[in-house]
Amino acid sequence: MKFIIQRDKLVQSVQDVMKAVSSRTTIPILTGIKIVANSEGVTLTGSDSDISIESFIPVEEDGNEIVEIQQSGSVVLQARFFSEIVKKLPKDIVEIEVGNQHSTIIRSGKAEFSLNGLDAEEYPHLPQIEEENMFKIPTDLLKAMIRQTVFAVSTSETRPILTGVNWKLENSELICIATDSHRLALRKAAINTESQNLYNVVIPGKSLSELSKILDDTSDLIEIVITENQVLFKAKNLLFFSRLLDGNYPDTSRLIPSESKTNMTINSKEFLQAIDRASLLAKEARNNVVKLSTITDGMVEISSNSPEIGKVSEEIQSSEIQGEELKISFSAKYVMDALKALEGTEIIINFTGAMRPFVIRTTQDDSMLQLILPVRTY
Amino acid sequence: MKFIIQRDKLVQSVQDVMKAVSSRTTIPILTGIKIVANSEGVTLTGSDSDISIESFIPVEEDGNEIVEIQQSGSVVLQARFFSEIVKKLPKDIVEIEVGNQHSTIIRSGKAEFSLNGLDAEEYPHLPQIEEENMFKIPTDLLKAMIRQTVFAVSTSETRPILTGVNWKLENSELICIATDSHRLALRKAAINTESQNLYNVVIPGKSLSELSKILDDTSDLIEIVITENQVLFKAKNLLFFSRLLDGNYPDTSRLIPSESKTNMTINSKEFLQAIDRASLLAKEARNNVVKLSTITDGMVEISSNSPEIGKVSEEIQSSEIQGEELKISFSAKYVMDALKALEGTEIIINFTGAMRPFVIRTTQDDSMLQLILPVRTY
Repeated sequence: MKFIIQRDKLVQSVQDVMKAVSSRTTIPILTGIKIVANSEGVTLTGSDSDISIESFIPVEEDGNEIVEIQQSGSVVLQARFFSEIVKKLPKDIVEIEVGNQHSTIIRSGKAEFSLNGLDAEEYPHLPQIEEENMFKIPTDLLKAMIRQTVFAVSTSETRPILTGVNWKLENSELICIATDSHRLALRKAAINTESQNLYNVVIPGKSLSELSKILDDTSDLIEIVITENQVLFKAKNLLFFSRLLDGNYPDTSRLIPSESKTNMTINSKEFLQAIDRASLLAKEARNNVVKLSTITDGMVEISSNSPEIGKVSEEIQSSEIQGEELKISFSAKYVMDALKALEGTEIIINFTGAMRPFVIRTTQDDSMLQLILPVRTY
Repeated sequence: MKFIIQRDKLVQSVQDVMKAVSSRTTIPILTGIKIVANSEGVTLTGSDSDISIESFIPVEEDGNEIVEIQQSGSVVLQARFFSEIVKKLPKDIVEIEVGNQHSTIIRSGKAEFSLNGLDAEEYPHLPQIEEENMFKIPTDLLKAMIRQTVFAVSTSETRPILTGVNWKLENSELICIATDSHRLALRKAAINTESQNLYNVVIPGKSLSELSKILDDTSDLIEIVITENQVLFKAKNLLFFSRLLDGNYPDTSRLIPSESKTNMTINSKEFLQAIDRASLLAKEARNNVVKLSTITDGMVEISSNSPEIGKVSEEIQSSEIQGEELKISFSAKYVMDALKALEGTEIIINFTGAMRPFVIRTTQDDSMLQLILPVRTY
């Protein structure tokens, strides 16, 4: 294998596939990046066996030559060293050449590295995925759907299925749901698909977070292929594979209350900042719990009290409050996470008493919903 | 105590004194910030007993009212909470009022915090320093002298005196020296002082680093007062006290070789980057050691070899090499630290053989010097 490549393209590709490489792996060759050069271009692969990422650098793009392939071939190089090296090479052009026993020369300007390589034949094969059943969504919509749900997955392994996001495709609608059993985030979107297939799968939250990091904010369509135990995301010059989680995701539809007793419309930013301030004292003493009380004239009081440190209270004006008076306590972190995910200027909160879950939506958009369980303190 | 203050001035002052506050202290009241208000303004103090910082906010600056004092007084508030609170207050104006039992109200807009305070009388007194013998230097020069020496102090407590920087004032010249016994950094500067006092003290490296962080990059003069066991830096509205280290600093003058066998003039940036690249492989296997060899025609080879990972070599063109041929090994980190501290475009290195310390200077400026001990590998 021998090729000459533009350094910035190589650096970008290496950074992308590095997202899948873990230093803690039981399969030593997976600490490496697989490099394959053929007449079409150079393909890099990184994998931790849960996630695999393949990045392709074409010989030519938009009429510009990016890679000059002098000899086809392949090698696996230590990811950590290879990625550091390409970042720090002195010139814009890099030459990579595999010699005897996979020993690989990396040349740029007057700098010459020789890295011990491994046989690419030893590298595990990526899952073979039938691409018949796929659907497409804009990349920026996919990133939004991930951002608005993935933060709510469980970080505890006591119920592994909750560490993933439940994706359901039915009636040309994609519904993403995450819950850690204290809160739930839901986002749905209409999908253009000719396939009549129904899907109900659980994608590891970590996979979705890593995917989101390497996707650009474009409206380009991304192809999604779901099989029994894998999901494949296909963007331009990029393949992202993730395993699916085994098991059935709990039915969350009954958790969402259909009626409410107190409804409040409020400015999201003011509400978020008041909770943030109240949580400054709450962090220490009471597991980050703040209180909300309706008072007169549409005012809402946010407060917190830590006997050893002090107390805080703040009144904010709601746009509208309907229904019963309310005193309720909740995790400041969960409500702040939800408000950030909703990204709305005005939000509606539907409460069903101090002991029941409450639902936060934006006034503009009913495609997303955040549900939070209160904390019993009163 | 009651006053109304501009939030941004308070935030800045709190951030400055926070640099001295440690959460790990054996004196509980030192986890707090002392606040004193009188007719001239508000003074904040933070201390970990090694370093003490006093920041003064005058009632008026440049004709603008900054503080309105409604009642003089004092209190000590928990630094961690107080600093977080002032940062997140909703409005530009903050009202602070001490009530019964040092309980302190912090009001801004509709947010109201009540913090449990402590009696300011319980707060330790700052050292009393006679200000007769002081000298002045421009703040930016002081920051440069700290930056160019403090990185070379020892981080090990086996010889505590080496964790400080040796400051010597003699013949109207200030000489700063730091060494961890593997390398030495020296910076000197002429000082305008009427005092004939000689000083030879050792200031903790940590104190100088913290001081440097809170000083602005101005050419305003800063006053320095040195006593038997304390040093005081006086900038505008800021007092910075540090204890001095006990003991005698070793005489380092004999370490610096007076003659040399190989002299090399080289571009600092190219040299630094080549060493940085060579160290990529050295980090792992050989304690960050790279090799330098003079080759023909004024070329210098920088190389490193880690049998398990690979090897790297790079040739760079020196401007001039005089004297004997040389092969020498050294810590990449020490040489990179030295080159960054020197900040020159062209540097001169004087070697006295592969086993002897070598000296790096810039071609423009002989007020600073970096000395490094080689590593024996040949």
